[in-house]
Amino acid sequence: MKLIKVIAFDADDTLWENETFFRESENEFCNLLKEYMSGEELIKELLKVEHKNISSYGYGIKGFMLSMIETAIDVSNGKVSNEIIKSIMEIGNKMLAKSVEILDGVNDVLENLHPKYKLVVLTKGDLLDQERKLNKSNLQKYFHHVEIVSEKKETDYQRILNQLEIEAHEFLMVGNSLKSDIIPVLNVGGHAFHIPFHTTWELEKVEVEVSHPKFKELKTISEVLNHVL
Amino acid sequence: MKLIKVIAFDADDTLWENETFFRESENEFCNLLKEYMSGEELIKELLKVEHKNISSYGYGIKGFMLSMIETAIDVSNGKVSNEIIKSIMEIGNKMLAKSVEILDGVNDVLENLHPKYKLVVLTKGDLLDQERKLNKSNLQKYFHHVEIVSEKKETDYQRILNQLEIEAHEFLMVGNSLKSDIIPVLNVGGHAFHIPFHTTWELEKVEVEVSHPKFKELKTISEVLNHVL
Repeated sequence: MKLIKVIAFDADDTLWENETFFRESENEFCNLLKEYMSGEELIKELLKVEHKNISSYGYGIKGFMLSMIETAIDVSNGKVSNEIIKSIMEIGNKMLAKSVEILDGVNDVLENLHPKYKLVVLTKGDLLDQERKLNKSNLQKYFHHVEIVSEKKETDYQRILNQLEIEAHEFLMVGNSLKSDIIPVLNVGGHAFHIPFHTTWELEKVEVEVSHPKFKELKTISEVLNHVL
Repeated sequence: MKLIKVIAFDADDTLWENETFFRESENEFCNLLKEYMSGEELIKELLKVEHKNISSYGYGIKGFMLSMIETAIDVSNGKVSNEIIKSIMEIGNKMLAKSVEILDGVNDVLENLHPKYKLVVLTKGDLLDQERKLNKSNLQKYFHHVEIVSEKKETDYQRILNQLEIEAHEFLMVGNSLKSDIIPVLNVGGHAFHIPFHTTWELEKVEVEVSHPKFKELKTISEVLNHVL
């Protein structure tokens, strides 16, 4: 671990809370449409629509809003009121304006690491929304820059390593998604620390046990300091 | 001009056609809502909504879709049909799937410049959509990387210069928007070439005459080669 030059942090659910707000918003969405469908069924329908749209909308709140509107029209057989559609947009607008809740230990970890490593934020969320959160979080002083990617696949990490002009073994990724933050990084030769968050989006779930010399499973972000300081 | 190290190109309406498609989509939108309002008035209403939303939605097609839906509900006094809302979403989905029309001269200019300069794409569009267009355009081989920014203000350019580790006078920006591509670049000390496109979005318009030793007004992108080769 002595050769690490760059530590990249995933943003949502690694630095600050995110998935919790999506779950809350889904509950509000279910409440608006309860005359048409049970909450449980509706969430399944929404997930199908999100899955269909992900390749054209990508990740983030605007795509989520559009998928909720599409789902509402579908499950109501084209009968949902304009008022409910406006309320759906309001759910999204509220998410976009939400204050940022930094997760426990984050400030301390960044404060300790930033004199010794180049730190970057590496996220596939919506650019404007992630910048907004970084500004509100007051964490931007710790980061060299924010890297926004549309996907976190092996080729994306390879490209980022090239841009950073470092070797894979000089790179450490810290994040909550095995699928996006851990497995592709290990596959290109980097180090990866997994910090599970209590809630994982369905489309990020993978059923896999990871065991790898460059991998560590941590309980909290504070434990990062035990391994790289 | 001999000291230029990095040439950054705006993407939409500099490398490929974009604004034309927004105007076509607006026409389709007006057509869908003609029972509620004349096209001319409707465009004004849409622009107001877009202006109100730009700080939370940013630039790009998904925000445009959401603003069209909001406008449709507003101008119909909450009476617009689900069918029309679906058609509005279809307008956006069609834009997201559209083929890329590279502007005249672009290939030749990039082919000639790319052995001599680091070329980057610098755009404030939606990340996924811009990557899609770059992949479809087959121009990615010429570019070192794509830089997506939420705004193109002086502080944004200053940050990019820092990341590129170059001085302002080593940087040239080429683009079609005086407001986003030219004025802020000149203000931080960079070079800027303006290539007007026949259509400019209302929110990008500025009434100003630019005269500056580091500025050139060009008729076509091919003229870039007269000044930097």
